[in-house]
Amino acid sequence: MIILSIDPGYERVGIAILEKIPRGKETLLYSECFKTSAKLPHPERLFLIGQKVHNIIEEWKPTCLSIEKLFFNTNQKTALAVAEARGVILYEATVADLSIYEYTPLQIKIAVTGYGRSEKKQIALMVPRLIVVDKKISSDDEFDAIAIGLTFFASDFKNRS
Amino acid sequence: MIILSIDPGYERVGIAILEKIPRGKETLLYSECFKTSAKLPHPERLFLIGQKVHNIIEEWKPTCLSIEKLFFNTNQKTALAVAEARGVILYEATVADLSIYEYTPLQIKIAVTGYGRSEKKQIALMVPRLIVVDKKISSDDEFDAIAIGLTFFASDFKNRS
Repeated sequence: MIILSIDPGYERVGIAILEKIPRGKETLLYSECFKTSAKLPHPERLFLIGQKVHNIIEEWKPTCLSIEKLFFNTNQKTALAVAEARGVILYEATVADLSIYEYTPLQIKIAVTGYGRSEKKQIALMVPRLIVVDKKISSDDEFDAIAIGLTFFASDFKNRS
Repeated sequence: MIILSIDPGYERVGIAILEKIPRGKETLLYSECFKTSAKLPHPERLFLIGQKVHNIIEEWKPTCLSIEKLFFNTNQKTALAVAEARGVILYEATVADLSIYEYTPLQIKIAVTGYGRSEKKQIALMVPRLIVVDKKISSDDEFDAIAIGLTFFASDFKNRS
């Protein structure tokens, strides 16, 4: 089973492709931190994010999307821009007929570190223990995307939209 | 010149198609309040909104999109859902290569009523005075969509994204 998992963002989108074989360990097939330039017009950045997701789905043919639920943070302007990007990601996933699963930051942290208020550092520490990773991961957004995918595998197909 | 103007929403999307002929008055070619059912899964509603915008663009072939900028209102949860829908609308417009113009509620109210804090009632009163309308408009969302389009025509191609 191949899934796409995404840490939604506007400046940076964490993207991961995870595979799970029955009785086997989860494997990371692909991950990246996709960035859009602040120099581009706002709709152009949404366009690039949508096209990226479209191409990733076309290439890896996942059956599900695991994505983080959005909550309000301190920066409300950022939250709206991230929500717009998240809308585009959900849209491309629905166009491609993926089943969509959404998880709160709390659920993700508990699934990966056992503790709902864990720091980013703990997530980066736990991810390589939970999944076979053959590459160096440097960005928090990639770690988060992988953690969101691991939450899906830990959740027995719960939280379907 | 034919433009698409949209009052972005999640439950209800105000959609209008406006035409302006050089030296002629603006004419409303089409408008509707597109609704999505609360019974549907969240991504499915975004999908329907995107497909609606796609089909409207295909049918009317507008060259521009005029759309309201989003601000935080009292209901933050709604704001995020509306932002997601707005992202999908901007995405479909960019895919179709439309030029995109964004206006604040203040700009829209000033363009249509001359006063930045006007009520919805005033907008409904002024819209038929500013544009040729051959149908009965019943929803605020349609009035708002038309007002957003009129703001574009009043703004001399300013506020391009």
